[in-house]
Amino acid sequence: MTKFIIRFSLYQLILFLLPLVIWGQSDYKLWLQYNKVQNKNILSEYNSNIKGIVALGNSETIQIATKELEIGLSGLLGKQITIQENSKGQSLVIFGSESSLNKDVLEQVKKELSTINNEGFIIKSIVSDGKKQLLITAKTDIGVLYGVYNFLRLLQTDKSIANLNFVDSPKINIRILNHWDNLDRTVERGYAGFSLWNWHKLPDFIDERYIDYARANASIGINGTVLTNVNANALILTPQYIEKVEALAKVFRTYGIKVYLTARFSAPIEIGGLKTADPLDPTVQNWWKEKAKEIYTRIPDFGGFLVKANSEGQPGPQNYGRNHVDGANMLADAVAPYGGIVMWRAFVYSEHDPSDRAKQAYEEFVPYDGQFRDNVIIQVKNGAIDFQPREPFHPMFGAMPKTPLMMEFQITQEYLGFSTHLVYLPKLFQEVLESDTYRKGKGSTVAKVIDGSFDNHKITGIVGVSNIGNDINWTGHPFAQANWYGFGRLAWNPYLDSGAIADDWLRMTFSNNINFVIPVKEMMLKSRETVVNYMTPLGLHHIMDTGHHYGPGPWVSNLSRPEWNPVYYHKADKDGIGFNRSKTGSNATAKYAPEVAQLFDNIGTCPEQYLLWFHHVSWDYKLKNGKTLWDGIALKYQQGVDEVGTMNATWDTMGNYVDEQRFKEVQMLLRIQYKEAKWWRDACLLYFQQYSGKELPEGVEKPTQTLDYFESLKFPFAPGN
Amino acid sequence: MTKFIIRFSLYQLILFLLPLVIWGQSDYKLWLQYNKVQNKNILSEYNSNIKGIVALGNSETIQIATKELEIGLSGLLGKQITIQENSKGQSLVIFGSESSLNKDVLEQVKKELSTINNEGFIIKSIVSDGKKQLLITAKTDIGVLYGVYNFLRLLQTDKSIANLNFVDSPKINIRILNHWDNLDRTVERGYAGFSLWNWHKLPDFIDERYIDYARANASIGINGTVLTNVNANALILTPQYIEKVEALAKVFRTYGIKVYLTARFSAPIEIGGLKTADPLDPTVQNWWKEKAKEIYTRIPDFGGFLVKANSEGQPGPQNYGRNHVDGANMLADAVAPYGGIVMWRAFVYSEHDPSDRAKQAYEEFVPYDGQFRDNVIIQVKNGAIDFQPREPFHPMFGAMPKTPLMMEFQITQEYLGFSTHLVYLPKLFQEVLESDTYRKGKGSTVAKVIDGSFDNHKITGIVGVSNIGNDINWTGHPFAQANWYGFGRLAWNPYLDSGAIADDWLRMTFSNNINFVIPVKEMMLKSRETVVNYMTPLGLHHIMDTGHHYGPGPWVSNLSRPEWNPVYYHKADKDGIGFNRSKTGSNATAKYAPEVAQLFDNIGTCPEQYLLWFHHVSWDYKLKNGKTLWDGIALKYQQGVDEVGTMNATWDTMGNYVDEQRFKEVQMLLRIQYKEAKWWRDACLLYFQQYSGKELPEGVEKPTQTLDYFESLKFPFAPGN
Repeated sequence: MTKFIIRFSLYQLILFLLPLVIWGQSDYKLWLQYNKVQNKNILSEYNSNIKGIVALGNSETIQIATKELEIGLSGLLGKQITIQENSKGQSLVIFGSESSLNKDVLEQVKKELSTINNEGFIIKSIVSDGKKQLLITAKTDIGVLYGVYNFLRLLQTDKSIANLNFVDSPKINIRILNHWDNLDRTVERGYAGFSLWNWHKLPDFIDERYIDYARANASIGINGTVLTNVNANALILTPQYIEKVEALAKVFRTYGIKVYLTARFSAPIEIGGLKTADPLDPTVQNWWKEKAKEIYTRIPDFGGFLVKANSEGQPGPQNYGRNHVDGANMLADAVAPYGGIVMWRAFVYSEHDPSDRAKQAYEEFVPYDGQFRDNVIIQVKNGAIDFQPREPFHPMFGAMPKTPLMMEFQITQEYLGFSTHLVYLPKLFQEVLESDTYRKGKGSTVAKVIDGSFDNHKITGIVGVSNIGNDINWTGHPFAQANWYGFGRLAWNPYLDSGAIADDWLRMTFSNNINFVIPVKEMMLKSRETVVNYMTPLGLHHIMDTGHHYGPGPWVSNLSRPEWNPVYYHKADKDGIGFNRSKTGSNATAKYAPEVAQLFDNIGTCPEQYLLWFHHVSWDYKLKNGKTLWDGIALKYQQGVDEVGTMNATWDTMGNYVDEQRFKEVQMLLRIQYKEAKWWRDACLLYFQQYSGKELPEGVEKPTQTLDYFESLKFPFAPGN
Repeated sequence: MTKFIIRFSLYQLILFLLPLVIWGQSDYKLWLQYNKVQNKNILSEYNSNIKGIVALGNSETIQIATKELEIGLSGLLGKQITIQENSKGQSLVIFGSESSLNKDVLEQVKKELSTINNEGFIIKSIVSDGKKQLLITAKTDIGVLYGVYNFLRLLQTDKSIANLNFVDSPKINIRILNHWDNLDRTVERGYAGFSLWNWHKLPDFIDERYIDYARANASIGINGTVLTNVNANALILTPQYIEKVEALAKVFRTYGIKVYLTARFSAPIEIGGLKTADPLDPTVQNWWKEKAKEIYTRIPDFGGFLVKANSEGQPGPQNYGRNHVDGANMLADAVAPYGGIVMWRAFVYSEHDPSDRAKQAYEEFVPYDGQFRDNVIIQVKNGAIDFQPREPFHPMFGAMPKTPLMMEFQITQEYLGFSTHLVYLPKLFQEVLESDTYRKGKGSTVAKVIDGSFDNHKITGIVGVSNIGNDINWTGHPFAQANWYGFGRLAWNPYLDSGAIADDWLRMTFSNNINFVIPVKEMMLKSRETVVNYMTPLGLHHIMDTGHHYGPGPWVSNLSRPEWNPVYYHKADKDGIGFNRSKTGSNATAKYAPEVAQLFDNIGTCPEQYLLWFHHVSWDYKLKNGKTLWDGIALKYQQGVDEVGTMNATWDTMGNYVDEQRFKEVQMLLRIQYKEAKWWRDACLLYFQQYSGKELPEGVEKPTQTLDYFESLKFPFAPGN
């Protein structure tokens, strides 16, 4: 237990806030702060290498790149940047696509050009007409824009630019955000205010935020956005709304971002006046074809549809006795003539099969491997339950070699403390991507399934369920910006290290000072394990309160579907706790490759982080550290609380490196996280103690409230519900 | 008809927006931009008169005043302002309350101090110890803060400060915003996003916006805020929420702003577990007393309750056979020991009396004159129907001499184009305040009723239904900020001229350049008449579409209560149009003083702006300009459209005076307003033409769509509904 004690009073905080009154908006600028470089040597290197910029070409995208360089360099170098008409000067940043380069220059990047894909870029120090220049080039203008953002990142993070040959291409085609945004601007599981999309004022009012949203996404390589909730409303497909979507698509297009929509499967009935939505009915098929034509007439680069079908009450092909293949392929045929795709979600679980929800998506989808159209991609959540603080990787990854699978991560913190808890999610994403499916022997990681290299898929994709809302700081918590950022970086390259990403983000967002970067990065990297510790240690899962999912609710047992109840997942009784998914139980382990199944099946080899996910374990079971399971659980909860204490202590010393507004915001939020970590600890331990019948071990603080109190808490207006 | 043609394409606008990408937030700063003074002579005068600032005292409010002067003067003068420890220097701005002044200084403002009230202030050039100084003083620290904001306003508007003796006090005690904000953060009739109050993160997270909200309000003298919707939720009165309200109250207190809540009349049942909410039941009375005690224990300066009772389905004393006096007095007794008040709304109309809604509040309330407790104030909307573009003043004003009446204005544009139409509302407010009730002979203006001077009331009040939301620019439309601003200024002094307020606002918000101020002020001042022209000319009212109130809906006739239907209000038939409220009709005119009643009764003397409000008039009736009524109506609609065209043309020439982001925002919004003005014109004229059977007169453009088309439009997700 740390010695850290929170000395917190609201009054003190407010007093401290008073001198802050400065209409400060650094929160809004995300990782594109472009503050002046502080290190004098580095600044001098930059100044001697950057005497001006030269744009080759004048497409809208090149204009954006020019503007971004102008803003970025002016801020970073602290002086006006001149835009040169030509390359007669020296030490210029010259940027333009392959087709705009002269022969001499082209020759110098020929080799690199042959290695990049259409979205890749080259940043290379070259000599042209005897003059040293910095060239940013690519096969396309969008590639150039990505190069510009990557170049600016080098400067934002104090990297040398003296001799550059930085060549990179995205490893995944579709790098996309899913907005669970409703047409009334509420956001399902949104904790950063409300939807950015002001449908009422569209199409004629283009909010500045649409542009800044596109900038931020382009800066990290995100190239697609699904504007609407997977729990879809058919009205988005009516002409009134398509016109509004078109206006957004126009803004996003120049930033290389395609727009996608969710398709409500019953739309032909609801807005088309048909009597059925049966995917094998020709009138239904034709309705979707006409609808696709209508959309593509207005939005020629429309990305396609995302569909949640026959899942949690959403309509789908099964309503008509058809299957997922029938539904997905019908939509795929409608958008195929225009190059569109269908992202079909595998998040399904039956209300008629109470045995083990963890097996169901696998059972429902894997048999269809090879039957989907070429332009269908199956969207699979990272784990088999639902975005828990920790889940083993979803067994579908690697199990459908003939079908491209798209990774669905959740950036919004539905189960991880909303926007009040600092949890650095790229650490979680990395854990999943590095997981070994063993489907083609050791080293068959999830990342290789996702990026297509494993099974040679043409379409590859990765999805982040957005944490973006209309809060001024976009994501509710200043550090939640890192999760948007990190998702984008991992979408571009799923083999990146989350620590390196955190390093970049901290430097771009706050400061390059290592006295700040090192301790705060450590805090970020530990934060995911911390939230697991104080919410769901040792493989526990789905024990949050019901509906809003805010705070603990292990006692909830009265919901209509068994698999909605926390008691279904923890199965605590006097003998022990945990869900037996081994071959002696639900046998969900059998869905994995044999090597993995064996590992998880055996309580002795099962990693303790998944212990209660796969096994029902006696309270007296001895953990690897020699503690009993009961003591181990209790100490993990305490550890989680203590770690949040340490986070508070760390942050409290960072006031000199961060503007006062953001410093205080994070401080207030860490105080809340500490309070809520205790709430989780106390509520869960008091509840489980009823079954274990044991005392709390030494080192675990006594609960401050009774179990009755915790069970009585109600949050009728918790956000995102 | 103007020659102005809108050459508008979204594409052009977006292209134009590209170079804008600058994370610009001037929108957020409201009228507190504090940009550097451009006029060199004036700047030089300021510099020679302001060498530093000296704070007398160090209360939190004085600290705020110091900070504001520091920020404001640094910006305006373009240099760092030094805070002096004492007044030894010369040309200092010295500020502090009466009690902090030394004898010599006190003597110089003694006379002024005797004329101001507790919130008043004095800004005076003085000589102390032989040195010329600028003194800002008041009886209270809040008065000093008001003085500081008023001083800064002088500088923001290029006024001379060489020899000042500016003495002012608010003429109304309670200057308050009503937020129709729900606990789920939706805002009833809110068009600027969602509620500022992030209840979920309160009390521990203090959003910077709370502080900036308080600043903005204090800067215009607003001293109260009702946080919650008049259609109330009892949960706001539970301990969980009172703790959150307490946190907001703490932020607002130092800015002189008291917090008030709406009281749901049935709260004793809903959260108190009682069987009744009968105001004469002692357990109910006691419940409210205990509740008041609980609130005041946490918030000692809690302002009191606002109540909408027995109105549009809200519970109230009539549910128990009691009356408004019983209900209001019970609550008044509960808060009286703590100095609290009850604001009881008079917005009532019976569903059982379909004769004329315009008479009902009068009939229900006036008989109770003199029966309310001293700490009850009756809150009356400006007109007898509901915040229409134009209404004659409410007949209750002046009719209840023994009861203080509070003016309720609506700043949010429920019936005036939401946040897409530029309508400068202080012009409307001024028209109402200047209206003559004739209750004590000529000159008995509404303003005199409101400010208490007419009947010597101690409590006086004025309410603005807020147009504030979590949009970055606070109010959705940059010019809607002027309505918040103007309401505050008129609340302080209801005799101010709306033109002078517009002048100040434009200079503070945009520019002091007269080439900007003069034409744009003219545009603002005309804008209210313009919206009347294109929506409801000649006394038409309540012909908007139903539910959301967006756009025209004169055809709506199917709502369950007769007085909810537009047809009830316009009564168009083949003989004519208008609601006969004269003595030959509903006799609503009789509710006014005889002089006023006579004026309105007689179609010859009734001002044409109220013609169809009070009379059913033949289509062939000759207006004062010689046109028939039909032609006159049609030409008014056209005039409204043309005037919006002129607004567009005016604004289009203002690009040099305004930052690009706000310039473009206003431009896009004016384009929408133009489109929607035509929609109103076309829909209303096509509909009324069915009854008049006449051709559109020359000069009126042909409608672009059919009536069927307009009637078919649906807006299921229009905001604020």
